Formats: sequence, structure tokens, C-alpha cells
Amino acid sequence: MNEFPKKIAIIGVGLIGGSIALGLKQHLGAKITILGSCNNIERTKKAKESGIIDEVIDLHAQPQGLRSVTLIIIATPVGETIKLLELISKIKIKNCLIVDVGSTKEFVINTANQFLGPNISFIGTHPMAGSELSGFENADPNLFRNKPWIVCSNNHPIISELIDILGAKKILMDAKKHDELTSWASHLNLVSSSILINAIGKQKNWPEVAKIASTGFRDTTRLASSNVEMKKDIIFTNKKNIIGSLIKFQKEIEVFVKLLQNNDTFKISNYLSTAKTIRDNWIENNFS
Amino acid sequence: MNEFPKKIAIIGVGLIGGSIALGLKQHLGAKITILGSCNNIERTKKAKESGIIDEVIDLHAQPQGLRSVTLIIIATPVGETIKLLELISKIKIKNCLIVDVGSTKEFVINTANQFLGPNISFIGTHPMAGSELSGFENADPNLFRNKPWIVCSNNHPIISELIDILGAKKILMDAKKHDELTSWASHLNLVSSSILINAIGKQKNWPEVAKIASTGFRDTTRLASSNVEMKKDIIFTNKKNIIGSLIKFQKEIEVFVKLLQNNDTFKISNYLSTAKTIRDNWIENNFS
Repeated sequence: MNEFPKKIAIIGVGLIGGSIALGLKQHLGAKITILGSCNNIERTKKAKESGIIDEVIDLHAQPQGLRSVTLIIIATPVGETIKLLELISKIKIKNCLIVDVGSTKEFVINTANQFLGPNISFIGTHPMAGSELSGFENADPNLFRNKPWIVCSNNHPIISELIDILGAKKILMDAKKHDELTSWASHLNLVSSSILINAIGKQKNWPEVAKIASTGFRDTTRLASSNVEMKKDIIFTNKKNIIGSLIKFQKEIEVFVKLLQNNDTFKISNYLSTAKTIRDNWIENNFS
Repeated sequence: MNEFPKKIAIIGVGLIGGSIALGLKQHLGAKITILGSCNNIERTKKAKESGIIDEVIDLHAQPQGLRSVTLIIIATPVGETIKLLELISKIKIKNCLIVDVGSTKEFVINTANQFLGPNISFIGTHPMAGSELSGFENADPNLFRNKPWIVCSNNHPIISELIDILGAKKILMDAKKHDELTSWASHLNLVSSSILINAIGKQKNWPEVAKIASTGFRDTTRLASSNVEMKKDIIFTNKKNIIGSLIKFQKEIEVFVKLLQNNDTFKISNYLSTAKTIRDNWIENNFS
């Protein structure tokens, strides 16, 4: 096993970045020093006070502080990641590995290839874990445990070790494939929950509906409460795939509405059973 | 406060019926005797062995056993409830209150009015609580705590006491209104989760998607795993409203796809923020 870097930087100490920091500290203790940076310096100081990171790095004032580390983990929304790659390209880092953990991969990896020189290895990755909660206050060292962690195209021993330490399951995949699959596994749900909420919120009777809606409603719509910036960036960097899955979902609603209109008891029953079987099998294979 | 009946029957000792039984026992202890009936006699015996009910009642062999109680709680899928109301009408019960806890109300209440004589009071109610799990094995005496419990049209002191004992919040509403509001608060989510799963399951890449889908996918699709019989009955007894909300949801997807196709950054941002605000406010008013 490789020696994991002794000094690393996490840019974006939110839910994901904070959980990575806690997971590494839980495993490596004093053997690792984590420099951290949030979207503002006050938040970064708070993350240090909370013991999530060891040192504050102010990327606006002193980006060259990044030169002291050999691993940079970028855990910001994708739009921010693009700006950071440009910034990093300007401060002439050498022999450094940069990894991002954002939700879309092709656009980010192309941008990294464009900005970063040959002395910097960039690897795009995506841990399939999250929550509708954000901020390092909700960070959890076990957030990634037994969850898939996609690594796009190039493997790297440090990345494998990182994923091992956090208890996740590494899956190698090219970026184009990643973006296509996640539009179904994640982004469709992410946007359709917002669409469902807006459809309901537009109804005149929403104030009355709100009074009787309960836990089923809460759970199925939780992604509508997730970070807007993150969601917007996902949409803009994976738009074609997301439009594709939304249109297929819409057509599927049409299929089901027709079954209802035709009063086709047998087919409706089959339809619902098929969905239950698909999901139950998936749960059994992945969560038990 | 009224004296709560000392001997009651719960027909359908599943998740909901079992949770009512446990909640009543927790509060009333030995002061209440609960007769129970499941969809088959072996299950009913098991419910007795598990301490959920006190006595087994076999509705097929000896439906007249119901004559010994003054309160019957029907907690079966709606289709089964209709058959039960017909059965009950034949065994000539007197001075009994019957309450159902099913997911749609207009059809059930109309059927009850048609079958039951003037000596039996029927009240249609709907506790807004549940889980994708079914069966009395998952019953929870606190399932209804702080959750809305809709009572259709007629109030009754025994029902108010039942709801109080279980810690729920009583909401009076007519049946037509109930069915209209729940198509948004509950049934749209219930069916759209099945539709989403079937849309995804149809894709060639589903086996690959299945490998990377994670907790967000699990939570937002949980209702696709709920009981098919229950869901089918809901659909058939509230079809018009459900078709209405599905079509509005479908149109809303169209609206959002157009925003994406037009690349309208500002409007997309607003759209996502609006959904987040609606849901966050709802959560704050109901779960904090």
C-alpha cells in the first residue's frame, strides 16, 4: 500500500469535503494535516474551530499556499471547480495530484485537461453519496461507507487508497458513460423532485395540501431542498442527458395515464408490480 | 372524555392496523381487548402470538363474532374494505361504530351508506402516515404521532378519542375534498415513483445505472416498493383526480425542459430556488 500524502488540501469544506476530511482524520489521525478552504474565510475559520480541518487556506489572498501539498481534493459545485482549475493553473504547482468529487465529469475533465500542465495529474471522480443537507456541520466520516465512488478513466494508487480509507467501492468508468448513467441514477431524481414541488406549489389548493402532506411526501421530495447552485451546475454540465431522461420520463407518464384512461385493470396491476419488483430487487442487491 | 370501547375489532392487522393496535395497547393496557383479523388465518394467529392482538377472529368462518364489539376499525386496502362492508351488512350488527382508515374516501363512504343500516354509524377517516414497509411486523405505536388524521365530514367522540390516544392531529374535511387534496399530497407521489422506476428500468443501461444509484435514488423512489394491492385500489377509487395531477405534472416537466432547451440560466435558477423555498417552508412548518 502506498504512503498516503501527509499534507493535503480540501477546497470546498461542505458536506462532501467535510465528510472526506473527517473520514481521513478518523483513519489517519495526526499522520495527516488538512488545509481547507470554504466559500468564505469566516466559514473556513469555523471549519478549523470545529476540528474538521487543521489549517485555513485563503485562496483569494494566498493561493500559492497550495504549493505545499501533493494532493488537492476539490469538493465544490462544478461551476466553482472550473474557476478553481483556472486559478490553480496560474500558481504553477508541481508534482501534485488533483482530484475532484463533483456530480458531472466530462465537462470538468475536459476543462482540467485544457488548463493544467503536464506536471499535474487530474482525476475526475464522483462519490455516489449525499444528503439534502449541506455544510460541514452535517459532515459524517461514514458518509461514503459501502457507497459507489466512480473514478473516471485513469486509476491512481492515491485515489484507490483514498476510496479504501473512506470505505467506499471504487468503480472505473469513462466520463461520457458516467454522465449518461448519472442522468438516470441521480440527476433525473434531482430535477424531477423540483418539478414535482413546483407543479404542486402552483395549485390553488397547495395551502390545504400542505396541511395534510406527510412523511411519504417529505421523503420523495427531499432532493427539491438540495443546494440550488450545485443543482444548476449539474444541469448546465449534463444538460443533453438530463433533457433526454426527462423526456423519457414524461413519455412514461403518458403511457401510464393511457392505462388509467382505458381502465385496464390487469395492465395497471402488472405495471405497478413490475416497478415494485425492479426496485425491491435493486434494494436487495445494494442495501442488504 | 368518553369511555373508550373495551372490546374492539381491527380488520386488517397490517402496518396501519397493527400500529393502531400497538398504540391503543400502549395507552390502555389491559383495559382494552382487541380482536383481529388478517387476510389469512395463519397471519392472524401470528399477530396474536406477537402480542399485537388479543383474540383471533375468523371472518370467513364466524363473521358474527363481530357482534361482540362496539367499534370496528377497518384497515385493509380499499377494495377489500368494500367487500367487508357488504359482509358486515349481512351479519346484522347493532349499535356499532365502524371506522375505516383507507387512502380514498368518497367511494368508500358512498358504499358504506349504501350497505349499512341506520343502526351502524360509519365514519371514513385517513391517517396521513405510512411506510413502504408492510405487515404488522413493522407496526409502530408511534406511527401516527403528530401526523394529520383526516376525518370525513361527521365527527364522533370515539374517533376523536382514538386520534387523541394515538397522538395524531384531527382534521375535518368532506370526502370529495379529501380525495382531491390527497391526489396531490400523496397519490401523485405514490404513482409517479412507480412511473419513474419503470422509465428507468426500461433503459438498456439499467443494469449499469443500478450499480451506481445510491441513497438519493433509494429515498426518492421508496413508494414504488409499497403494496401493489393498496396502490391499485387507490388508483381505481380516485382515478379522475390522479389523472388530473399526473397530467399537470407532465405539463410541468414540459415547462422545465423548455427552460433547459432555451438555456435560460436566470429562469432555471429561479425555478430551482422556488421549489427549494416551497419545500423548505413546508418542512419548517410541519417537521420542526
